[in-house]
Amino acid sequence: MTLQSVRGATGIRRADRARQVADVLRQQIHAGAFEDALPAEAELASEFAVSRNTVRDALALLKDEGLIERAPKVGTHVAQRKYEHGLDSLRGLKETLRGHGEVRNEVRAARAVPAPPAVARRLGLAPGEQAVYIERLRCLGDLPLSLDMTYLVPDIGARVIARDLETNDIFALIEDISGGPLGSADLVLEAITADSHSAATLQMPEGGALLLLERLTRLEDERPVDLEYIRMRGDRITMRGSLIRPADSDWRLI
Amino acid sequence: MTLQSVRGATGIRRADRARQVADVLRQQIHAGAFEDALPAEAELASEFAVSRNTVRDALALLKDEGLIERAPKVGTHVAQRKYEHGLDSLRGLKETLRGHGEVRNEVRAARAVPAPPAVARRLGLAPGEQAVYIERLRCLGDLPLSLDMTYLVPDIGARVIARDLETNDIFALIEDISGGPLGSADLVLEAITADSHSAATLQMPEGGALLLLERLTRLEDERPVDLEYIRMRGDRITMRGSLIRPADSDWRLI
Repeated sequence: MTLQSVRGATGIRRADRARQVADVLRQQIHAGAFEDALPAEAELASEFAVSRNTVRDALALLKDEGLIERAPKVGTHVAQRKYEHGLDSLRGLKETLRGHGEVRNEVRAARAVPAPPAVARRLGLAPGEQAVYIERLRCLGDLPLSLDMTYLVPDIGARVIARDLETNDIFALIEDISGGPLGSADLVLEAITADSHSAATLQMPEGGALLLLERLTRLEDERPVDLEYIRMRGDRITMRGSLIRPADSDWRLI
Repeated sequence: MTLQSVRGATGIRRADRARQVADVLRQQIHAGAFEDALPAEAELASEFAVSRNTVRDALALLKDEGLIERAPKVGTHVAQRKYEHGLDSLRGLKETLRGHGEVRNEVRAARAVPAPPAVARRLGLAPGEQAVYIERLRCLGDLPLSLDMTYLVPDIGARVIARDLETNDIFALIEDISGGPLGSADLVLEAITADSHSAATLQMPEGGALLLLERLTRLEDERPVDLEYIRMRGDRITMRGSLIRPADSDWRLI
């Protein structure tokens, strides 16, 4: 094994150490370890056994991510806490953020559309069949958190858009309309940067990071009913999950 | 309910439609629906019932993400396929990418370090106790996919760094050394942009999107042994999972 921990350029090693410090601090911020203010630079340097310059570099990384604010005299403060969305949950955002504030949805579109062939195939629709398309900007109070684009099968979709989309999670409406619980979902998560229009809609900087969730959800009878593309602001939302592996079984999300 | 689907500015509606088209095409690219070349603009315009200008805008979004290449005469091609990492899997990258090529790890650090207090707490170590720190750049062939920073408890870590870290997944080494399977994990996923140093290390553009996975893994006896911070290139990796909800039970990742 070749150890490459010793690098020629000192700058490179300091950047590596700054990243290590930033990652641990990021996790502490998410976990609410700091009551608003972060410890002083000297204290952090001692905790992490690094130089104060390295601590400054680490804090600069977190500042660039919008996670902390720094100012002379007042020190380093948590700029914003991220909201946790459960990976496991087919709960909607409103249910997830219960206790944090009121989730309000700006309904940008809600109408029947001809399903694009790729969407029709995934929803089990015939070519050219109509789907119902819903687009919502989801806010916690005045803070935009995610931009959700939803394709629903026509029978359920027609009844969903007759309901109140400004305050309800679509999952809850589907379960109510179909008379039973949701059964399964396939999800794909990726990180992309925000194009100018998405950024403007979400009131975030262009080029900022987005967590893009694509999710196909089925009823208990395995019929696919809901295909969603959800753009979550990277600076506001994390996805959290826990896995266990019971003896002789698959991993289970808990 | 207020429908806001009709907007005053035509440009805004076209950008909204371009995003819809881009999201469906992105999913088709991930699923391998196109044998290298994408359909012609006119065909896509017809499929999605949008103008050719909207199709061009959608393709421009995907080109900016590095997902497709466009050139006069040769048309639109898939630039790169993303690799799927299973959300469920406590499998490592090597096991995940079996069949795609050889996973090679550049070992950038592997040594005992004083555990920062926040790391010590999560690994159940006493303040000031040593942990083992491993940093690896993980490549598929010559293509950097992720930068992994790992803190291990000292007893297991000392034995892990005596093994071949260039070709093995750390999970496999831990299971081999501890003599039993891993038991559970807590994970947090977020999207961040790449700082200049991380971007240079991963050979990607500065400011590009990273999927950051923080994962604490425990043995079967619930002892935490492994705390990781994994930066995955957003343009190369997606995380995929499937959830089912068995009757009267919690959602299960399958």
